[in-house]
Amino acid sequence: MPRKLQNEDSILRKIADGSRSSQGQGAGQSIALGIGDDAALFRPTPGHEIVLTCDWFLEGTHFLREKHPPDAVGWKCLARAVSDVAAMGGSPRCFLLSLALPETNTGRWLDLFLGGLRRASRKFQCVLAGGDTTRRDEILINITVVGEVRPGTAVLRSGARADDILYVSGRLGEAELGLQILRRSEKRASKKNPLTRKHLYPEPRLALAQWLSKKGLATAMMDLSDGLSSDLPRLCAASAVGARLERAKIPQVQTQDLALKHGHDPMQLALHGGDDYELLFTVPSRKAKLLPKSFRGVALTPIGRITPERELLALEENGRASQFTPGGWDPFRKKL
Amino acid sequence: MPRKLQNEDSILRKIADGSRSSQGQGAGQSIALGIGDDAALFRPTPGHEIVLTCDWFLEGTHFLREKHPPDAVGWKCLARAVSDVAAMGGSPRCFLLSLALPETNTGRWLDLFLGGLRRASRKFQCVLAGGDTTRRDEILINITVVGEVRPGTAVLRSGARADDILYVSGRLGEAELGLQILRRSEKRASKKNPLTRKHLYPEPRLALAQWLSKKGLATAMMDLSDGLSSDLPRLCAASAVGARLERAKIPQVQTQDLALKHGHDPMQLALHGGDDYELLFTVPSRKAKLLPKSFRGVALTPIGRITPERELLALEENGRASQFTPGGWDPFRKKL
Repeated sequence: MPRKLQNEDSILRKIADGSRSSQGQGAGQSIALGIGDDAALFRPTPGHEIVLTCDWFLEGTHFLREKHPPDAVGWKCLARAVSDVAAMGGSPRCFLLSLALPETNTGRWLDLFLGGLRRASRKFQCVLAGGDTTRRDEILINITVVGEVRPGTAVLRSGARADDILYVSGRLGEAELGLQILRRSEKRASKKNPLTRKHLYPEPRLALAQWLSKKGLATAMMDLSDGLSSDLPRLCAASAVGARLERAKIPQVQTQDLALKHGHDPMQLALHGGDDYELLFTVPSRKAKLLPKSFRGVALTPIGRITPERELLALEENGRASQFTPGGWDPFRKKL
Repeated sequence: MPRKLQNEDSILRKIADGSRSSQGQGAGQSIALGIGDDAALFRPTPGHEIVLTCDWFLEGTHFLREKHPPDAVGWKCLARAVSDVAAMGGSPRCFLLSLALPETNTGRWLDLFLGGLRRASRKFQCVLAGGDTTRRDEILINITVVGEVRPGTAVLRSGARADDILYVSGRLGEAELGLQILRRSEKRASKKNPLTRKHLYPEPRLALAQWLSKKGLATAMMDLSDGLSSDLPRLCAASAVGARLERAKIPQVQTQDLALKHGHDPMQLALHGGDDYELLFTVPSRKAKLLPKSFRGVALTPIGRITPERELLALEENGRASQFTPGGWDPFRKKL
């Protein structure tokens, strides 16, 4: 069967056509003009601030062409950018897709990729507004998400104050364990394997973040993308504070035996594993009682306390405190 | 001298620090929160629509590391994305920078790149609001520009009507000639060579586009990024019309002898050369007399007429008409 030469216009049409048909009624009403012109037009909600974020998702750095299902690549590239909007307490509205592809991936791979992207787009109510495509030997993706937040309600990294309680949502290290299992497997990951699901199909904590922002509970918030040991220092630096972490309280992977069997220490996974997209946030101690133990099935766990000294300490169960050093994902230090 | 290991946080600081110091007074006032949090916050002008565009700028596809001055890479990556906002009649406000770099380019190359980017940022009054960086063997850039336009004043590709006059700004083919000269030279291009300037430092036609939009003169508009022969069919398709082009009227490179000496036909350069970032626009024939011959030193040239038949014809000087076929830049057909 002859392979048709796909040019940029026809690829853009493929992306745009599927996008229109997948939009629920009214989902795209803030998009005054979508794909097909020089730029897109978006009508902001009057009186709101615009939340802007962009994220690389690159073959070899963030995913492996032979191991990651195209559907998961589509889902995850949007989910992780949406997670940045969630971490501000914002609501995603629309996104731009920049996609560079080898010609061999413009057929079935692209269809499956777009399928995952559209599922994420519907789930997060974040509509494709525009993009750019080009040919490239490796698959390169960049996603820009545009969200909205009511003025003054965005939760920044810089708001943590001494004595605030430090919380995380969910469990930490599950995505990293999934990645390790995926790397060792001989074939492409199954979409249904529960052990790799959190790595392949992360769920940004949109509802939780919006609730925390609306109730005025969180003084500072960020999403955990590079791992607790890398991201906590960022939150503390932005707030000019320190933290005292109770190691034993950090929620670890549910499948601890399995992690150990694969040679991974659940505590190391929880401290340094990236890609969880859970929320790290601080709550004034007098408001901590207003926080439920879980929110819509996602555990909310106090793991420590903010200190005025600009120092990060990890408290062992035996009461000994040790310096806490970053060991998470830094693209300028290691590769996938 | 030992080379320091630059990590992502320190590179982000370098980008952010320079960005703040380069912002003119008030230039960044619409940015409520810039680099350093999960996302940026932008305060839109009440009642305006948001213009959104993103653009790849990739080593090997859009520029060559050994031939293009880093300063020009910084200028051009922003200029070409701003040109998309200009082509809608919009005003750029802020941008996001996604940058993937080899470690060897995080020193002097990055400084020069950021210098060019900042000059463009000041010139186009488009403030850096956020970004994402990662390590990569090749230099990858993606730029998102956020602009604004008063509701109902955006000039789309789809507004051209039969009998409208077709115009271009400036001269066509100069950027392509510059690229050809650059490709053949043994060394990196000089910033001062007038022959390569338009290829290296394109100027989006912001003031002209805003004037055309404000005066209600243009019915359809786009910027010429892929070449007239590729872009005109797009404008015609969006407007469901055709066009009759007078070949002799197409403004060609000023240095025609030099182009011929280098083996390039000025007409072929004008028809198929990319990267000019001139404006292609249509004006109702009854309003054509309101259009000056030039706007702030940039020629405005009528090059043909819109027809109701959905067909593209090129009229020769001898009166013969021939079919007009795309031959410009398509990243899925050829490489830089």
